[in-house]
Amino acid sequence: MPAPHHDSFLDLCRAALGPQHVLTDAADKAPFLTDWRKRYTGDAIAVLRPGNTEEVAAAVHACHAHQIAVVPQGGNTGLCGGATPATMDSVVISLQRLNRVRQVDPLNNTVTVDAGVVLQHLQDVAHEHGRLFPLSLAAEGSCTIGGNLSTNAGGTAVLRYGNTRELCLGLEVVTPSGEIWHGLRGLRKDNTGYDLRDLFIGAEGTLGIITAAVMKLFPLPRASVTALAAVASPRAALALLAIAQSHAGAMLTGFELMSAMSMQLVTTHFPQLRYPFAEVHPQLVLIELSDSEGEDHARAIFEKLMQVAFNAGVVADAAVAESVQQSRDFWNLREHIPLAQVEEGKNIKHDIAVPVSRVADFIETTDALLQVSFPGARMVTFGHLGDGNVHYNVSPPAGEDHDAFLGNQDAVNRIVHDSVHSHGGSISAEHGLGQLKREENRLYKSEVELAMMRAIKQALDPQGLMNPAKVI
Amino acid sequence: MPAPHHDSFLDLCRAALGPQHVLTDAADKAPFLTDWRKRYTGDAIAVLRPGNTEEVAAAVHACHAHQIAVVPQGGNTGLCGGATPATMDSVVISLQRLNRVRQVDPLNNTVTVDAGVVLQHLQDVAHEHGRLFPLSLAAEGSCTIGGNLSTNAGGTAVLRYGNTRELCLGLEVVTPSGEIWHGLRGLRKDNTGYDLRDLFIGAEGTLGIITAAVMKLFPLPRASVTALAAVASPRAALALLAIAQSHAGAMLTGFELMSAMSMQLVTTHFPQLRYPFAEVHPQLVLIELSDSEGEDHARAIFEKLMQVAFNAGVVADAAVAESVQQSRDFWNLREHIPLAQVEEGKNIKHDIAVPVSRVADFIETTDALLQVSFPGARMVTFGHLGDGNVHYNVSPPAGEDHDAFLGNQDAVNRIVHDSVHSHGGSISAEHGLGQLKREENRLYKSEVELAMMRAIKQALDPQGLMNPAKVI
Repeated sequence: MPAPHHDSFLDLCRAALGPQHVLTDAADKAPFLTDWRKRYTGDAIAVLRPGNTEEVAAAVHACHAHQIAVVPQGGNTGLCGGATPATMDSVVISLQRLNRVRQVDPLNNTVTVDAGVVLQHLQDVAHEHGRLFPLSLAAEGSCTIGGNLSTNAGGTAVLRYGNTRELCLGLEVVTPSGEIWHGLRGLRKDNTGYDLRDLFIGAEGTLGIITAAVMKLFPLPRASVTALAAVASPRAALALLAIAQSHAGAMLTGFELMSAMSMQLVTTHFPQLRYPFAEVHPQLVLIELSDSEGEDHARAIFEKLMQVAFNAGVVADAAVAESVQQSRDFWNLREHIPLAQVEEGKNIKHDIAVPVSRVADFIETTDALLQVSFPGARMVTFGHLGDGNVHYNVSPPAGEDHDAFLGNQDAVNRIVHDSVHSHGGSISAEHGLGQLKREENRLYKSEVELAMMRAIKQALDPQGLMNPAKVI
Repeated sequence: MPAPHHDSFLDLCRAALGPQHVLTDAADKAPFLTDWRKRYTGDAIAVLRPGNTEEVAAAVHACHAHQIAVVPQGGNTGLCGGATPATMDSVVISLQRLNRVRQVDPLNNTVTVDAGVVLQHLQDVAHEHGRLFPLSLAAEGSCTIGGNLSTNAGGTAVLRYGNTRELCLGLEVVTPSGEIWHGLRGLRKDNTGYDLRDLFIGAEGTLGIITAAVMKLFPLPRASVTALAAVASPRAALALLAIAQSHAGAMLTGFELMSAMSMQLVTTHFPQLRYPFAEVHPQLVLIELSDSEGEDHARAIFEKLMQVAFNAGVVADAAVAESVQQSRDFWNLREHIPLAQVEEGKNIKHDIAVPVSRVADFIETTDALLQVSFPGARMVTFGHLGDGNVHYNVSPPAGEDHDAFLGNQDAVNRIVHDSVHSHGGSISAEHGLGQLKREENRLYKSEVELAMMRAIKQALDPQGLMNPAKVI
């Protein structure tokens, strides 16, 4: 039960939102207090469920007046504990009831949506209007666009369409003092002052609450065709990337690396998924082309670029999907890697990015460093090679206990993240910082950069009430 | 001559930069003190010409210690007076000696450049490495990439590649206190804190000085082919845009509107440029396709989309360029509009953007409003229709004195900008605010937004020394 001194605050909230949308019962609050990965559980005075922007503003205004911290939450699918409480005397403000698609403007190629709209629903609405909303990631069935924006989510189409940041034209935001910034512009060009939009994007709710956004849409491609290529090394995969970019240009919408170890886990734990080549290769690359003409044209481009790659000795074997089902099968191999890892047992995960040109160096160097400290450790390396974003996951040596190996997490993180840093990379490519990487991040940012981040936090949230103990 | 109380400051600067790079003679300073359009002339204690980032930091540090304002300047080609002094007791810091291309990384599709590198040189360097740097605008022969970033420049390729903001991955910045932020990351994904990069981009030097940047490169298209289409109205041009986007996808790299009045001025003042159709049409559209396959493929796409447009009754006539020279001729028509306006006499210019879907509404409504107040006024309307960015220029009625008509500037601006605002638009699409639109901008921004901008300015530049009386 909330402490009695919160009574007047809760009365304010009940008056603003309706009593049924102010959850104070422990069982009602529970689903909002533990993160997706079940690493973090916090407590909250209440979970507030406003139904529109004005109610969000009223709730934040009440928090501001009573010095109560605010934890914004979308679909609660974040991977870094950014959307659940980390401090005392806070409320969770769930945006899930803000779930309207406000406007679709096909001629402007934009859609205006509430923050609580589920990503998959947004994809579907775009499709109904003959448009593509390209953001796509594993949690799309339950994550919300507000959360995607607050974490600047990445996913599988970044190579062509960019991160969530690049997909947003305008925002509506409730500020830490409970005012509303009406920044829902649907403009491709606007040079009238500081870029506040991009400051809120990726801020993980520490500067204000995104309540709505204008997102970009794209013409729907007439066909998507997938191919798999077998290559000898990450370095060969990079050579193939350059060939694919040269021959496919902007048609190239996916370029995913999958190591032999990744494929071995998948075929072990999901034997119904068949390895597509007669011989086992060190690396597979999944390539997707999206085509505004049609399948035949996409296949012709694949034939050409694969021919160039074969002639250059870059590719050992290749298969272009003959059907939508076969494209689906190829993607299934990629998407079952995380699931196969769950079946195999725990491992130490890293969501890192380096310049694309340095991915092979990074993998070779870091593999070697880990073998020195942890002989026999098995690296499950896969991910968005076209973006320089590799999920570099470290499993224990064969036969060693997975839970016990997790005791090495800090030492493994240090080796991996130091290597990332020395390769000019990022220790959080697409998941954000949240609670998980807040401390770690300070090791790699300069004091100049941290001081600017703190100054901005202080300027926009002087009372420090927005999502405390996250990011900064 | 500078006042004697500046002696110790100037001695500091001379020691840091070398005396030859501290200009105090009036004749030496003059080229740096008047803006490109010759609307604004200021004065400065000195013009400082540092040769590298450390010298920029030393110069800013000296200014900070002596409370002297700093006006950063690139190629001095800005159109809003953002790069010349507007207040007393300031120095101009010219970035022109920071002109090294630091690194080209073709595999990462990036180039790292000093801020003073001229845009055309950057385009050339990219081309030598088989890559495209797509930013292109009229001043490219003398503007610098630092200025492009500080104003978030637009240009003719935004439809496909975005503004300068979208082309930048990382920055090096000298802060208002003279520290260096080493943010030169070449990463496609990096979610490790607030987006400082995009805060400096478009800030017109009011938050710090950009000294270097990592810019994106793209595969060089194998062919670019241009076509002209004659349409009945801006509304028909929008219908053609939707058809072109559907059939050409990301191959569509240019979509420029040119009104009959624009074409009349061009053919009057540059009779060597021929109007390409037998009959005069209300609007022409210039369409450019860039193709990773080749010219034949681009022409086939043009044939298909023009056929669809003809069948839909959207296009009255069309011509696809048969050669590189003919493509050049088509672009010449577009690029001679501003030059023809200079020949014709002064007019009242607007650099505005509205949502693409509202461009036709905006033009119709605003034309009608202006005719009420200024009967016979002639609108020279042209620009980047694909971005919703129209150069909406108002010329006097035929026979009326051009200089006298300029006396109506405030009244005309009010009508045009009010109409922009009511169409959800921007009063500065691609030129920025500088001195020219700083006051005007306050009329259209909410107090919530202005307060956030002021808070950020105060947080990062508490002494208000960076480019005062600009932007905010």
